Amino acid sequence: MQVIKLNLYKNTYKIIVGAGIIDRLGNWLKKLNIGRNAYIITNSLIKKIYGKLIEKSLKTSGFGFCFKIVADTEKSKSLRTVSLIIKDLVNYDCKRNIFIVALGGGVIGDLAGFVASIYKRGIPYIQIPTTLLAQVDSSIGGKTGIDLKEGKNLLGTFYQPRLVVSDIDLLKTLNKEQIKIGLAEVIKYGLIKDKKFFVYLEKNFEDILNLHLPVIDYIVRHCSKIKAEIVEKDEREEKGLRTILNFGHTIGHAIETAGEYKRYNHGQAVALGLLVESYLSYRLNYLKKTDLIRIETLIKRVGLPTRIERLSFSQIIKAHYKDKKFKGFRNRFALIQEIGKARIVEDIPLRLISEAIKKYLS
Amino acid sequence: MQVIKLNLYKNTYKIIVGAGIIDRLGNWLKKLNIGRNAYIITNSLIKKIYGKLIEKSLKTSGFGFCFKIVADTEKSKSLRTVSLIIKDLVNYDCKRNIFIVALGGGVIGDLAGFVASIYKRGIPYIQIPTTLLAQVDSSIGGKTGIDLKEGKNLLGTFYQPRLVVSDIDLLKTLNKEQIKIGLAEVIKYGLIKDKKFFVYLEKNFEDILNLHLPVIDYIVRHCSKIKAEIVEKDEREEKGLRTILNFGHTIGHAIETAGEYKRYNHGQAVALGLLVESYLSYRLNYLKKTDLIRIETLIKRVGLPTRIERLSFSQIIKAHYKDKKFKGFRNRFALIQEIGKARIVEDIPLRLISEAIKKYLS
Repeated sequence: MQVIKLNLYKNTYKIIVGAGIIDRLGNWLKKLNIGRNAYIITNSLIKKIYGKLIEKSLKTSGFGFCFKIVADTEKSKSLRTVSLIIKDLVNYDCKRNIFIVALGGGVIGDLAGFVASIYKRGIPYIQIPTTLLAQVDSSIGGKTGIDLKEGKNLLGTFYQPRLVVSDIDLLKTLNKEQIKIGLAEVIKYGLIKDKKFFVYLEKNFEDILNLHLPVIDYIVRHCSKIKAEIVEKDEREEKGLRTILNFGHTIGHAIETAGEYKRYNHGQAVALGLLVESYLSYRLNYLKKTDLIRIETLIKRVGLPTRIERLSFSQIIKAHYKDKKFKGFRNRFALIQEIGKARIVEDIPLRLISEAIKKYLS
Repeated sequence: MQVIKLNLYKNTYKIIVGAGIIDRLGNWLKKLNIGRNAYIITNSLIKKIYGKLIEKSLKTSGFGFCFKIVADTEKSKSLRTVSLIIKDLVNYDCKRNIFIVALGGGVIGDLAGFVASIYKRGIPYIQIPTTLLAQVDSSIGGKTGIDLKEGKNLLGTFYQPRLVVSDIDLLKTLNKEQIKIGLAEVIKYGLIKDKKFFVYLEKNFEDILNLHLPVIDYIVRHCSKIKAEIVEKDEREEKGLRTILNFGHTIGHAIETAGEYKRYNHGQAVALGLLVESYLSYRLNYLKKTDLIRIETLIKRVGLPTRIERLSFSQIIKAHYKDKKFKGFRNRFALIQEIGKARIVEDIPLRLISEAIKKYLS
C-alpha cells in the first residue's frame, strides 16, 4: 500500500493505492471527520459486486449510508441526472451530517464530484475509483463535469475530493476493453512526462491487458504520482502546467463529441487524439518521425484504434471549435517536444490541424 | 467614489461605490484583463433604463457584448433557467473570449454568479448591482445560488466576482418597497456588528426611504466595508465568522420557503427573521428587553412587516428543518449578544424556537 499526498493550499488530501484495502475505508473516513452518513453514488453492477464490502466497512466504523444507483454511461453526466440526484439527496440529507462517495468509473466520479461541489455550496466527497481510467486519472485532481449536447464537460467545477482510495482488487472484474480505456491515459503520462515509463509500457503492456496485478499496482501508483505532482503545481489550470494533461484530449474530445459519446469511448477517442496530436508535434518539427512511429505502434499493439472511422472531417472540426481550451480566436494545444516532454502551442494553422486529422481518417 | 478592497488568498477584488460612475466601467474592465466580450445577464426593465449607458462604456473601451434577458423573480433561480442560459452562452462563446456581467438585483447576481462558476469550470464575472439589497449585501462575497422546491439556495457555489461596481445612481428608479427590501439587510449589519450604525439608522431611516442620495451613498459604502471585512476573514463560512451574516436568515429563509417565495419577498422575510431571532436572543438572556423593543420599533417604523401572516407554524418549522445551517441533528443560529454584537448558538430547544415564531405569528 502506498499513500500519495496531493498538497494544495487548503485542500490537501491523500491518494491511497493498494490491493485489498477497501475494508479499511471506514477507519480512514473516521479520521477525516467529514460527516457521519455516506451518500454513495454508484451503478448497479458495482453495487452488486462491492456493495457488501463497502457496507461492512462503513457499518463497523459506525457510519450510516445509502446507495444511489445511476447508469454508468456518459449520458448520466447530464443536468437531468444532477437534478434527480439532488432531489434524492435533499431527502436523505434531512437532519443528517452527510458526505458523498463516488464509487465507480470516470462518469460517476465526474458526476458525483459535480453534485458535491454545488450542493449547499459544497459538501465533502471522496473518490473510490473502480476502473483503470478513474484510478490513474479522473479520480485525482478535482475536475468535475457534466456534458451538454454542445460539448463534453462544458459544465463543471474544480472541487477536490477529501480522499481517493484506489483499490487495485476492484479492477479484477474489468474486461480487456475497459482496461484499454485506461491504457490510453497511461500512455499519455509516458508521452508528456516520463520516457522511461513509456519504454516500460512498450515492454509490459501485455501484462497490463492481462491484469497482472503487480504491474497494474505499479502503474496506478506511478500515474497517480505524476498526476498529483502536476495538479499540485497548477490546481486550476491557470499557469499552463496542468494543461499538459490535455495532450491527446483536444482532438480526443472533438472526436468523442462528434460521435455523440457513442461512436468512441473515452479511451478510444483519446488514443486517436494522441495520434493526431503526436502527428502535429511531428509536423511542427518537435517530434522525430521514428518516435511518432513508436507511438503509433504502441497504440496499435495495445489494441486501441488507429483510424477514425464513420466520422467526417467537418464533424470533428465543428466540435473542435467548441473546445474549452480556446482562448478567443486562438487555438491552444498541449503537444510533445519529444517522448516524455510536453509543450503548449498556440495558434496552430488550421491547415496543419486538418492535415493531421485527415491522416488518421478512414 | 470609494474603492473597497476585499482581500482573499487568490481572489482579491475591488468594490467600487459612487454616484454616476458606471460610464467608467469599460476602463476598469480593461485593467482586469478578463476577456473581450461581455455576456450581460439582466432583466428587461434594467436593460431599457441602463442598457445604452453600459453599451456606450463597453463600446468606447472596445468590448463586444450581448444582453441575456431573464425575469427578475425568484423563479429565475432555477436549474431550468441555468440550463437555458448555458445553451445561449455556448453559442455566444464560440471563438470568443468572454466574461459574464451580472447586471441586476440579488436574483440576477446569484444566478449569473452560479452560471459563471460552473461554465467551463469557472469563467470570470463581475457584479453591477442595481438594487439596495444587492449593493449592500448579495453582490459582495461570492455566494451564488439556485433554489429548489425544497429550499432556497440549496444549489450554489462560493465563487468570487472579479469586480463589484455599485453605482448609487442606479438606485434612483427604485420604489419605496424595493428600498425596504435592502433596508432589512442594512439593519442587520447594525445589529450584528455596529451599534453606532444602528443608531444612525434609527435617526436617518426616513432619508433612506426617500432615497436621499448622500445618505444612501454612506450606507452602501459602510455596509460594503462591513461585509468585505467579514468575508475576508472567513470566505467559505468555515470558521463560524461569516455565519453571523445569517442573523435573521435562518427563520427568514424558512418563512420565505414556506411562503413559496411569493408570500414574502426576501427583505420582508428577513425582517420577520430578525424579529424572531432577536426574540430568541432575548429569551436566552443575551439581549435586553429594551433593545428588543428598539429593534421591533425600527422595523415597524421602516414599514417592514412585524407579523407573520397567512403562514402556519408547522409550515415554517418544516422549512426550517431543511436549512443548510443544520449540522446533523443540531440546529445552529447566528443570534445577537447585544445590539452590535453577534454570537453563534447551537442546539436551541425546539420549544424556544416555537415560542419565538408564535410570538410574531398572526
